[in-house]
Amino acid sequence: MSLLARIQSPSDVKKLSSEQLPQLAQEIRERVIQTTSKNGGHVGPNLGVVELTIGLHRVFNTPTDRFCFDVAHQGYIHKLLTGRNDERFDHIRTSDGYSGFLSRAESEHDAFGAGHAGTALSAALGMATARDQRGSDEHVVALCGDAAFTCGITMEALNNVAASTKRLIIILNDNKWSIAKNVGALSRYFNELITTPAYNRLNDDIERFLQKMPGGESIIKLGSKWKQETKDFFVSSSIFEQYGIRYIGPINGHDQKQVEHYLEFAKNAEQPVILHVLTEKGRGYDVAIQNPERFHGASPFDIETGKGAPTAAGTPPKYQDVMGETLVKLAQADKNVVGITAAMPSGTGLNILEDKLPEQFFDVGIAEEHAVLFAAGMATSGFHPVCAIYSTFLQRAYDQIIHDVALQNLPVLFCMDRAGLSPNDGATHHGLFDLSYLRCVPDVLIMAPANEDELADMMATGLAYQGAAFIRYPRGNAIGTPLKETPAELEIGKAQRLQKGTDIDIWAIGTMLADAERLAENLSTHGIQAGIVNTRFVKPLDVQTLTQAATQTRLIVTMEDHVITGGLGTAVMEALQEADILCPVERIGWPDNFIEHGSSVAKLREENGLSPQAILERVLSKYAKRQAIEE
Amino acid sequence: MSLLARIQSPSDVKKLSSEQLPQLAQEIRERVIQTTSKNGGHVGPNLGVVELTIGLHRVFNTPTDRFCFDVAHQGYIHKLLTGRNDERFDHIRTSDGYSGFLSRAESEHDAFGAGHAGTALSAALGMATARDQRGSDEHVVALCGDAAFTCGITMEALNNVAASTKRLIIILNDNKWSIAKNVGALSRYFNELITTPAYNRLNDDIERFLQKMPGGESIIKLGSKWKQETKDFFVSSSIFEQYGIRYIGPINGHDQKQVEHYLEFAKNAEQPVILHVLTEKGRGYDVAIQNPERFHGASPFDIETGKGAPTAAGTPPKYQDVMGETLVKLAQADKNVVGITAAMPSGTGLNILEDKLPEQFFDVGIAEEHAVLFAAGMATSGFHPVCAIYSTFLQRAYDQIIHDVALQNLPVLFCMDRAGLSPNDGATHHGLFDLSYLRCVPDVLIMAPANEDELADMMATGLAYQGAAFIRYPRGNAIGTPLKETPAELEIGKAQRLQKGTDIDIWAIGTMLADAERLAENLSTHGIQAGIVNTRFVKPLDVQTLTQAATQTRLIVTMEDHVITGGLGTAVMEALQEADILCPVERIGWPDNFIEHGSSVAKLREENGLSPQAILERVLSKYAKRQAIEE
Repeated sequence: MSLLARIQSPSDVKKLSSEQLPQLAQEIRERVIQTTSKNGGHVGPNLGVVELTIGLHRVFNTPTDRFCFDVAHQGYIHKLLTGRNDERFDHIRTSDGYSGFLSRAESEHDAFGAGHAGTALSAALGMATARDQRGSDEHVVALCGDAAFTCGITMEALNNVAASTKRLIIILNDNKWSIAKNVGALSRYFNELITTPAYNRLNDDIERFLQKMPGGESIIKLGSKWKQETKDFFVSSSIFEQYGIRYIGPINGHDQKQVEHYLEFAKNAEQPVILHVLTEKGRGYDVAIQNPERFHGASPFDIETGKGAPTAAGTPPKYQDVMGETLVKLAQADKNVVGITAAMPSGTGLNILEDKLPEQFFDVGIAEEHAVLFAAGMATSGFHPVCAIYSTFLQRAYDQIIHDVALQNLPVLFCMDRAGLSPNDGATHHGLFDLSYLRCVPDVLIMAPANEDELADMMATGLAYQGAAFIRYPRGNAIGTPLKETPAELEIGKAQRLQKGTDIDIWAIGTMLADAERLAENLSTHGIQAGIVNTRFVKPLDVQTLTQAATQTRLIVTMEDHVITGGLGTAVMEALQEADILCPVERIGWPDNFIEHGSSVAKLREENGLSPQAILERVLSKYAKRQAIEE
Repeated sequence: MSLLARIQSPSDVKKLSSEQLPQLAQEIRERVIQTTSKNGGHVGPNLGVVELTIGLHRVFNTPTDRFCFDVAHQGYIHKLLTGRNDERFDHIRTSDGYSGFLSRAESEHDAFGAGHAGTALSAALGMATARDQRGSDEHVVALCGDAAFTCGITMEALNNVAASTKRLIIILNDNKWSIAKNVGALSRYFNELITTPAYNRLNDDIERFLQKMPGGESIIKLGSKWKQETKDFFVSSSIFEQYGIRYIGPINGHDQKQVEHYLEFAKNAEQPVILHVLTEKGRGYDVAIQNPERFHGASPFDIETGKGAPTAAGTPPKYQDVMGETLVKLAQADKNVVGITAAMPSGTGLNILEDKLPEQFFDVGIAEEHAVLFAAGMATSGFHPVCAIYSTFLQRAYDQIIHDVALQNLPVLFCMDRAGLSPNDGATHHGLFDLSYLRCVPDVLIMAPANEDELADMMATGLAYQGAAFIRYPRGNAIGTPLKETPAELEIGKAQRLQKGTDIDIWAIGTMLADAERLAENLSTHGIQAGIVNTRFVKPLDVQTLTQAATQTRLIVTMEDHVITGGLGTAVMEALQEADILCPVERIGWPDNFIEHGSSVAKLREENGLSPQAILERVLSKYAKRQAIEE
């Protein structure tokens, strides 16, 4: 029986001897590689924290002690050690398996769920403050990647640590990467900490001190004495000291013994401490080490070669790549067009711009607020920035959109990838709220393309608009519409009628246009003639075409890959009311719930009443009611 | 003729001799005190930057050079020196006057508008990058208060400065205050910079170096030589050096000569620099110095005594104070109830909690994202935090509301003051979007009270709800409803019918209930019987009462102190459609525009078609159309 198979809970991790741990680590790595090779997932980050997570569970006691994992994509090992080494782990990130992130709903060992970056330190500080307030004595550990420190929230929390608590353990899991290679002054600074001999010397001192102790126990027994004795070992000029936090490091995050020693040390500190732990993304799996960006969050791959399934001939390009290629064209034509990403060059397709026109490309780190404000600043100086930020992450910059860009009517184009579902990632990554939160903002343009050529056209349209423009489009492959040589500007606020109908008019947007066509076909088999409109613009809406349709048919159906509250369907109802037209509107969209992860968009649609059949039935039912009223 | 009267543009500031500047400063202070004593305004912050702003306009050339003022409430002197010392300045913050903040629409000298904190450095970095990109050579200066550094965006920007440009001037205007006394580790650290002899010694060195030069000119002529020579003068271990930014300071911000010298020095730096300038809030006006929090943003006051107009006997309490008093009651009854503010203890009324139950009060600085995440962390540990954050500032924490609080269904109550208009402040401060941006979030409770007793009841209701609950209420005085001894929990999702009607049913929420009563009265003079409902809950909406009303009357009128797109009226339409009821809905709310500042809510309503008469006319017109269709 393998060691891993014996681990039912963290107490089993503690029972193992130090000599057994390398084998456990090896088994965990194999398990992670096996599982992610089938389901995809965050291979690199998890392989990097194997020893660290084992160490955490040997030194601390969850669920009494609380771990906050930043982003929480590096929680697979934590799952394996907390009773989740089972079938649902085999199916991680699918409908039959665990979430790819931590989740309070999934396990009492997950003190805080996440998915977005930079939340761990703040949440941990809340937990530590709660503990101090009620007088309990559990430990609180925040595990933050180095990239978390490019994120403003982490720095807001850092500013509050020393004033809030005397006991908080922060682990700086430093692998030099966010998703892409890390950027900014702090990243360079962390490097300095590692490479400056002074730091390493001091670190040796602590190590010698620790080695004198037979184990964690004895350190505790030293009581307050150690504080006095170790005071001089600490690096007094690190940036963290200026925040009132003791810096310890750098520590080799793959030396199990060293990791545990320092964690014991931190556990007994009576002052907030930060352990600077050096880890290697993809550790133990050469293919992942050689391709850190691809293996950050990988699709299924062949373990031997690391290669994904070959793309079938004729597969349409990904929307993100069409965005990147189109931006290159537009930026070549106008040097005032620049692209800005918040640490997602390849996910957004901006890596294509980076390759071709590096001068017109900016990566500001995981810092969406700054990304948008930086864009606003450039926009005041004659530039037209394109902020490529996933729909769900743009929630971070909501105030900047309203207060800085829209209110000042600055020309910034927002390309919101991952609008709709990120099925394997789940609720933290679905982009289902953008239409609602943007529609109320005055003077903005909101678009969604039905195909990749329209995406290119909308980018040209957005860049011609002297204000804030937003384009939402989904994760994954486009539908194969040939791209025109040069993107064309669309008429702002004009929908595209694809088919006339006498009974029902279907207003679909984005990817739902294909579903609209299917629905119209299905309806025709029931003798119902449905028109089809590619809505294109949610704001401004094509009121003229809409009111005409509403007076000539019995029912408007709206279809959007977005939550039903406040989106396109709602915009249609608002417009009809303003035009004094009473017409029923059946709104097809995601229900007013958080949507969990699942194997595929189709499966999640099925589960949420959005299969083609379910949609057909809803529309037929609404239509029948309408007919009943009329008769 | 006064010196100030001669200043038509910044070039006139440059023409004055050094000897004339104290008089100019004195005249400016008198002008600011006179004007704010009539109109209210940011007295303290402006009196603190008189010499600094004069210095900026003597050393730099706007509009070619660009100034970004953080928050921009300290821009009055800048206005006076850039051609705005006129009648509109007399009427600042009213309908006939300038904005109390900077505004691109107001002057070409205002490179960036603001109103929320922490935006200046990001925007300035965008401008500096744009300059470098296009090869122009203007200077970019970011003027940030010390509190801006408690704000994550500033730190995100700081991380990007060194990698983005070699030329950026950051002024740290340090007066130890945000609106309240500043908090956090950085604030303490800035203090250390000031009080540590080493820093002052080094600073003296720079000063001696500067004094050798006959003026700015000569420093320029030194070319790159100065960099070498001054290298050793800089404090090498300041936190800013670790961000790759040269720290210079501290500088006496009221010593005009010293200010100008250092600005010249910074102007010629070929590396990003931060000037640490010490200023005194309220400088030159004793009353303001003695009451820095009250004179941060003051209502009209008597210049001699500093006192505001006495409150008339029987004036109802402010909503914020009712919130604070009620929270004390609820927190006394349950020690797990805590209050959290982001640097606004008195504006939110949380100062009352701070006084009575300091252990249950937390001020995290201007850090709304952290405030909400910190609340989420405490909520996982058995606490029920109350985040008191203005509606417009809560936009900063939108992602944390969705991703951390609602998604994890954590019990956090949000008290959103300043929902509706902040008339004198204007577009940056109006809270007109919250219903739209919150309504799409699953599982949340959204309420608005019609009077102060209902506010207390809603707080009790929100604290009984095991998830995210939001209460929006306006700036200013409540309406005089007596408060019950103990707040009562309301039935969740239940509206309150106040009057039955046969023709129209009016669904009002919050402060609009009084307007609804007036409207119903006005309608009755036209022979129309209108029902009145106090909606109370926007989510969940009282669908049962609504559908009943819609089937029994001809028209639903909704009234909300919120933008018309996506708010209460829209929620009503969505509910009616879902219930298959075709009923016209006339939505009364703010139009889909940014609303500027003005003398009063009444005046701004008037200008935006929301006077009682205009509302009556709209409703009559809609009702007549409805009758016409029926006939």
